[in-house]
Amino acid sequence: MPSTRASGRPRYGTLVIVGGHEDKTGERVIHRALVHRLGGGGLAIATVASEQPDALWREYAALFRTLGVADVRHLAIASRAEADAPEAMAALDGVRGVFFTGGDQLRITGLLGGTLAAERIRDVYETGGLVGGTSAGASVMSVTMLVSGAAEESHRLGGSLRMAPGLGLLPDVIVDQHFAERGRVGRLLGAVAQNPTILGVGIDENTAVLVEQAPDAPCFRVVGEGGVFVVDGQGASYTNVSEEEENRTLSLFGVRLHVLSQGDEFDLASRTPTNHPAEEVDAALGLRDGAS
Amino acid sequence: MPSTRASGRPRYGTLVIVGGHEDKTGERVIHRALVHRLGGGGLAIATVASEQPDALWREYAALFRTLGVADVRHLAIASRAEADAPEAMAALDGVRGVFFTGGDQLRITGLLGGTLAAERIRDVYETGGLVGGTSAGASVMSVTMLVSGAAEESHRLGGSLRMAPGLGLLPDVIVDQHFAERGRVGRLLGAVAQNPTILGVGIDENTAVLVEQAPDAPCFRVVGEGGVFVVDGQGASYTNVSEEEENRTLSLFGVRLHVLSQGDEFDLASRTPTNHPAEEVDAALGLRDGAS
Repeated sequence: MPSTRASGRPRYGTLVIVGGHEDKTGERVIHRALVHRLGGGGLAIATVASEQPDALWREYAALFRTLGVADVRHLAIASRAEADAPEAMAALDGVRGVFFTGGDQLRITGLLGGTLAAERIRDVYETGGLVGGTSAGASVMSVTMLVSGAAEESHRLGGSLRMAPGLGLLPDVIVDQHFAERGRVGRLLGAVAQNPTILGVGIDENTAVLVEQAPDAPCFRVVGEGGVFVVDGQGASYTNVSEEEENRTLSLFGVRLHVLSQGDEFDLASRTPTNHPAEEVDAALGLRDGAS
Repeated sequence: MPSTRASGRPRYGTLVIVGGHEDKTGERVIHRALVHRLGGGGLAIATVASEQPDALWREYAALFRTLGVADVRHLAIASRAEADAPEAMAALDGVRGVFFTGGDQLRITGLLGGTLAAERIRDVYETGGLVGGTSAGASVMSVTMLVSGAAEESHRLGGSLRMAPGLGLLPDVIVDQHFAERGRVGRLLGAVAQNPTILGVGIDENTAVLVEQAPDAPCFRVVGEGGVFVVDGQGASYTNVSEEEENRTLSLFGVRLHVLSQGDEFDLASRTPTNHPAEEVDAALGLRDGAS
């Protein structure tokens, strides 16, 4: 995954992966944490997941300007040609962060995959910048992403679960969003069962994970109101996921499960959570009065 | 828990614990398995959880008669006095099974707890008979039962989760029902976090666990369409559940999780699942043509 570019060896930055419906009018802890990490740099708002990009752009531009980001730009892409065009390059030129709004994750990967814009976005991350996304914009972070699947039922073999190649910034993980609110534990377990080496990370609404290379292995911290559900299938003893029988309900034995809340950290290399007081985040993420 | 009665040493029978909304018009695998276990004995339908008991009685009486139960009786109890009355004793006299329909689990325990009817029902179980229940009737099986709690969100400390003493036929377990369909994983994890020695068992709709002493330790088998979610918190490394902070989201690290589907077995003593083909249940539970 890490590639060596003209800019030198990769020095990964921060991923801000948001479970959707994040608070935009109250405390806005997630956006404030993002702005803190941005460190005064420019931010491109990528509305490519949506067919109504302008309203999203106006909403997020106002939000980030209120939080002190002087240089906010719109990365508006409605075709693959636009993703290679000078306008897209200009929107990304010199920014320190890119934030993907919600919509359809296949629009993001279908329109961006293999384009110059996708390469520039990866460059931002691999030179220490920030890439974030909410809802569909969260799902695309992983190498293989969840596209769709049944909610509020246990996973069925041969059912509606669909996966596709994502933007690939976060390896060995599958992200799901709107997690508790849309009853998605069944589909995340179904995804993990298909290859238990992949870690399942389900993020609630108004909740985010901030992934950083700290100090040399990827680690994430939870920020926000809800929970983050981590499914580690590595030690699973059995699954029937490869059986032929359509519509059979999934069996999956011996999964390790962690539920994390604000402040808690998770080491992605050792797959180990560490608890921290929720308030610790205030200082660490610059959420104290006026810190952002 | 096991008590020695006039009838001799306890010889526990079968618990049939149903996640609600079980199929009553098609294959009816759950009811057929129940009838098979009943072995030709009489069955009392306990509608005590509901304030509309008569419609439920008519529906279940017709269903079980169609499946070959000759002696079906109505255990209709609307007050604690009725639970000690001769009519209740007559409804339970000599039956080999009792089945609790759905409604409000606190009606079952509030009206039956400490009465003669409750004692007789325990006798049925402790002399090798069957006690079953669906939805609210499933929740009451455990020593401590789940009464209510938020759905479709991660568990919050000091939130709406309520527990109460159940009928106590199944120790060391907390049962939840309508599990995937109502997004109840958060509340089950919240319950387990409060005392991780308790095993959490979440049962989907149209799905049941049949608990038996096989041969000398309790074991359950899954029957039906959906999944059964088993949360084993015994090895959990951390939880914030005892923190004072109201509305903080639950953290719970290092839970062991198993998802079971039809045929699969779970040893409640060793807390170990074993996989079995779904079809195996057909023979074991008398679900082959006309077997019931």
